[in-house]
Amino acid sequence: MSTSAPLSSTERTRIRRLPERAASDRSALYEILDAGRICHLGVVVDGSPRVIPTGYGRDGDTLYLHGSTGATSLRTTEDVCVTVTHLDALVLARSLFHHSINYRSALIFGRPRPVTDLEEKLTGLRALVEQLTPGRWNVARRPTRKELAATSVLALSLEEASVKTRQGQPNDDEEDYALDVWAGLVPAVQSFGPPVPDPKLRPGIAYV
Amino acid sequence: MSTSAPLSSTERTRIRRLPERAASDRSALYEILDAGRICHLGVVVDGSPRVIPTGYGRDGDTLYLHGSTGATSLRTTEDVCVTVTHLDALVLARSLFHHSINYRSALIFGRPRPVTDLEEKLTGLRALVEQLTPGRWNVARRPTRKELAATSVLALSLEEASVKTRQGQPNDDEEDYALDVWAGLVPAVQSFGPPVPDPKLRPGIAYV
Repeated sequence: MSTSAPLSSTERTRIRRLPERAASDRSALYEILDAGRICHLGVVVDGSPRVIPTGYGRDGDTLYLHGSTGATSLRTTEDVCVTVTHLDALVLARSLFHHSINYRSALIFGRPRPVTDLEEKLTGLRALVEQLTPGRWNVARRPTRKELAATSVLALSLEEASVKTRQGQPNDDEEDYALDVWAGLVPAVQSFGPPVPDPKLRPGIAYV
Repeated sequence: MSTSAPLSSTERTRIRRLPERAASDRSALYEILDAGRICHLGVVVDGSPRVIPTGYGRDGDTLYLHGSTGATSLRTTEDVCVTVTHLDALVLARSLFHHSINYRSALIFGRPRPVTDLEEKLTGLRALVEQLTPGRWNVARRPTRKELAATSVLALSLEEASVKTRQGQPNDDEEDYALDVWAGLVPAVQSFGPPVPDPKLRPGIAYV
């Protein structure tokens, strides 16, 4: 699908609150997904929601999820919701009411398809590994047949998705700009520190 | 409730996968919640799950959520799941199969109660503000009656909760320790950069 193709407009993906925060093309969706490490997977179990942090990977217009074949949350053949969120800044307004966050979030809805084809399973696992730990697919030992059999991979179409973001400075009420209250942004930064080698690492192996 | 009181053990909070990663006392729950900024709120809308990033605050054994009185996700009188996750490190193993993340996560289940009492509403909003932007309750303009009326506050008991964490170095298969593959942790750091004042800020107001 073209990156400028419109995002879906189903009842679930219509942004009701603050529609000016909604993005409407696929490139915004891809950017948010590609910049993330983990998602929050929502499933319905016995009628009540369950939200689990987990890894994901994207290949074109397919999102891949994985887990042990024993995991309850992956046994679903029902609809799921996958949410990826970036916290970009705290928004400190002059009034508490207008305090907010700058964020980018993507919600994907749909019924995941269990991946049974071996080639697609490897495609999905590669996307998952490279999303979480870029570069490792070509470095670490590949999965054995037994490991592949113990791993469920699910494919979720990115067809039904919505994107919502907030950026910029606080929007205070006109009369509040006269207050002696500091206002602005406190940027949030997600970064990675220097690698910590496993004490069991054999000598002479460099971090890649 | 005492911080050493056991976490609940309902069907929903029983950790099925890797039960050794489950924590069993309330202090672990409080620590995870108190260290977070946003949660992922799971609700069921027309039978399908929806996962929304949002703020929260804790006061004792109550978690507070809030939003516009118009927000669909807060109109629920059904069960919700609130998840708070900290990504602590990427776990790079010698095999792809054992790649993982170090994380701390808390899941809270229950049926939120709309807060109608004005005093409790203020308690909830204070907890929400101080969670997201510590120190601002005593700095910024407090909510007016009109603003309070436009804000829904929900209270969720922390009674039914589970905590799951992974820490430490990778657990590779015995024979893989001989491989020439770097293994270890890449620590994830969530930090906040220097404040960026609103260009409309009146001169002479210091950041607090």
